[in-house]
Amino acid sequence: MLYLIGLGLGDAKDITVKGLEVVKRCSRVYLEAYTSILTVGKEALEEFYGRKLIVADREEVEQKADNILEDADLSDVAFLVVGDPFGATTHSDLVLRAAKRGIPYRVIHNASIMNAVGCCGLQLYKFGETVSIVFWTDTWRPESFFDRVKKNRQNGMHTLCLLDIKVKEQSLENLIKGRKIYEPPQYMSVNQAAQQLLEIVQNQRMRGEEPGQLFHLNSKTSEGSALQLQHQTITEETLCVGLARVGAEDQKIAAGTLQQMCTVDLGGPLHSLIITGGSMHPLEIEMLSLFSVLEDTSESQSIDGL
Amino acid sequence: MLYLIGLGLGDAKDITVKGLEVVKRCSRVYLEAYTSILTVGKEALEEFYGRKLIVADREEVEQKADNILEDADLSDVAFLVVGDPFGATTHSDLVLRAAKRGIPYRVIHNASIMNAVGCCGLQLYKFGETVSIVFWTDTWRPESFFDRVKKNRQNGMHTLCLLDIKVKEQSLENLIKGRKIYEPPQYMSVNQAAQQLLEIVQNQRMRGEEPGQLFHLNSKTSEGSALQLQHQTITEETLCVGLARVGAEDQKIAAGTLQQMCTVDLGGPLHSLIITGGSMHPLEIEMLSLFSVLEDTSESQSIDGL
Repeated sequence: MLYLIGLGLGDAKDITVKGLEVVKRCSRVYLEAYTSILTVGKEALEEFYGRKLIVADREEVEQKADNILEDADLSDVAFLVVGDPFGATTHSDLVLRAAKRGIPYRVIHNASIMNAVGCCGLQLYKFGETVSIVFWTDTWRPESFFDRVKKNRQNGMHTLCLLDIKVKEQSLENLIKGRKIYEPPQYMSVNQAAQQLLEIVQNQRMRGEEPGQLFHLNSKTSEGSALQLQHQTITEETLCVGLARVGAEDQKIAAGTLQQMCTVDLGGPLHSLIITGGSMHPLEIEMLSLFSVLEDTSESQSIDGL
Repeated sequence: MLYLIGLGLGDAKDITVKGLEVVKRCSRVYLEAYTSILTVGKEALEEFYGRKLIVADREEVEQKADNILEDADLSDVAFLVVGDPFGATTHSDLVLRAAKRGIPYRVIHNASIMNAVGCCGLQLYKFGETVSIVFWTDTWRPESFFDRVKKNRQNGMHTLCLLDIKVKEQSLENLIKGRKIYEPPQYMSVNQAAQQLLEIVQNQRMRGEEPGQLFHLNSKTSEGSALQLQHQTITEETLCVGLARVGAEDQKIAAGTLQQMCTVDLGGPLHSLIITGGSMHPLEIEMLSLFSVLEDTSESQSIDGL
């Protein structure tokens, strides 16, 4: 049997009782180590589980999946994933390979960032499509995901932005020279994500695809239609929520404008960013006020007013 | 400290190791018993945790929340929720009351249906707004949620439909006479949800708000634009996924048309229903084919073709 086991989001003790029992009895235990991280390292997990873990990097899972599945029809093999096994799409492939080889599989679920973001008080059912924000390079600065954020907001839905993780990447030079030397891991912060988002807002404004910020400031006191337009577009003042190390003891949540997200200090990885859907339920606003870093900006009035 | 602890979706052992440790040491442990159920009852939980549980019904949580919070500034109180504590919006209120009274709180997350549905192979990031489908009565047959399903589908997003739960409901007669006699619990099945959905599709078609089924059948072999329209509307043949007891040993998943969801046998509660977003990734189609109940219908061709 192949077991796909979610580890949850915090530390070694966030595995379920059922998951821990399975880990202890499997013949081999793999740890998927490229789509997310816990606040503790592999060694802490090994100590708590009382087992050696085999770290599976992207190459291992995507190109050498057969190693993982070897003998899984005869003995039990566990594949551990931070969060929930189906948070990342890459694990469907492992299930399909198992199914093709007639290997039965079971999933032991756990929290993932996809549902744990509810802890900030925004209602989960009001989230639209989730987007990923990748590190820009000098030559690759994708903006296309931003249309999906805008569409969510136009429909009154929040957007969860998953932020880029780079592990086991080679520099161009090392890649060309075939040297298996890897760069230190990089985890995108809420600050970096917000800065990239602001640059997109400004680019689109210059190209005339987004109304200007001044327009909003001037119109905010006027009629409902202007307020509605403000709720549908994304500007420096759009209400966002930054989250860090969700599920861990030292998790941090900050609610403020997109501009404020550029400088808010949330500490170490992993970070996520939510762009709110504009119109919110009073309970959502009240919950966000627990995490407010807002001073006197336009969208903040609805939070501070409570 | 107030602890909000997710129990996950299956049985007693789906609590996390961290959650179990907290349950064992709290002075009072409440079990929220109206937004979801596990496949095991309260007694099985009590035996596994080695503790008495206080069942908190909706009235207790919404109107007598102060009982739950009593002394939580001096000792530890646990509030257990099937799934994740923030899957249901009603628990924000408890957090806000705690915050107002200066009682610190912590959340111990777990899987909820909101992320565990990923097990069917549909990609979580492509889900739009979640809707709830309630039991219709003779006099109350709401259809408004259907617009949100249509909007999701038009945008290529899947819709998770949470199905109604009725616990501790009084009959009209008992309510009027003030008799605290409760009806047996009712859990909406995928069959019931699909039948209500089909009736809405037919109602809207009669009112001219939805194109007819025949239109799709006739146009399916023609150009891309017709196929695209088919992917955006909801008919008897729209590809759906029914899920039952997700996370439990005997979970069942069935992928088929909305029509087929009216009769598919998924066994006992809880059930959920997904209406797919139309255009799907090849990996999604391949995963769904593991659960296919399709025969030869129009949307099934894309699944059976693999």
